[in-house]
Amino acid sequence: MSAETTAFTFPAAGKGAALEEDTILSPRFDANGLVTCVAVDAGTGEVLMLAHMNAEALALTMETGEAHYFSRSRGKLWKKGETSGHTQKVREMLIDCDQDAVVIKVEMGGTGAACHTGRRSCFYRSVPLGAAPSAATRLAFTGDTPRFDPAAVYGKGHDGHDH
Amino acid sequence: MSAETTAFTFPAAGKGAALEEDTILSPRFDANGLVTCVAVDAGTGEVLMLAHMNAEALALTMETGEAHYFSRSRGKLWKKGETSGHTQKVREMLIDCDQDAVVIKVEMGGTGAACHTGRRSCFYRSVPLGAAPSAATRLAFTGDTPRFDPAAVYGKGHDGHDH
Repeated sequence: MSAETTAFTFPAAGKGAALEEDTILSPRFDANGLVTCVAVDAGTGEVLMLAHMNAEALALTMETGEAHYFSRSRGKLWKKGETSGHTQKVREMLIDCDQDAVVIKVEMGGTGAACHTGRRSCFYRSVPLGAAPSAATRLAFTGDTPRFDPAAVYGKGHDGHDH
Repeated sequence: MSAETTAFTFPAAGKGAALEEDTILSPRFDANGLVTCVAVDAGTGEVLMLAHMNAEALALTMETGEAHYFSRSRGKLWKKGETSGHTQKVREMLIDCDQDAVVIKVEMGGTGAACHTGRRSCFYRSVPLGAAPSAATRLAFTGDTPRFDPAAVYGKGHDGHDH
């Protein structure tokens, strides 16, 4: 963890108009205490990655303007880029109608790769449309090629996820 | 439901390189059988909404090129726009590194409003940055104002969510 934790407790989530039409931030955390976060490139709007925030990660992101997430696989808070240098400076944060998801518009640090595979975006494969899925269905790579070697950054044997 | 269900069973999700570097579509459905879907405007890239797909919704979206989702609150499949006319024609679908989230690039039908509140995007309020959250924290509306009257479309007393 790279910043002081924030003791503030968000208001309990409202319902209906109180949730959707008011200016009170009352996140609807799920059963695991998380909201979903979509990180998009502040310049191009490209979707870079999807991750989760608990109350602490949300508060730290608001306070510091640097993206913090909660790793479901590791069960802990992490500051994006703390291992890899691929930080995310948050230029804008939006919250959705029922306050269980946020969008952050970010400027990437390091090589600009948001994905732990070394690619700019985690969404580097397309799914074919126009036919029902079958055993013949194949994904296609978009051309977003790795910008760094994950094994060199995270170490071999580490899955690199959530960093 | 507006289309035949698809009987195809997706391959069990792989791990590591099989999941991340292969061209086999093997979605990592969560404990509730869902992947997360981010719908963005095919023209501008703006994030419109976040929803979920079960295997059937994913298969129907691939087959028909029209967005189908699974409503967690209603526990059923729905075709986006079946009530409101705000359909989503899918121009491109991308899947992420660990295959538990997809992005769809869509052309909106109807008034162009993806949100059940009548707004173009569900992300119509911004969260302030640069200070820790406090009792004084206030969301700000982005100016994305309603394009239709939800009560007229969905009926009064219906929350309109997930349509």
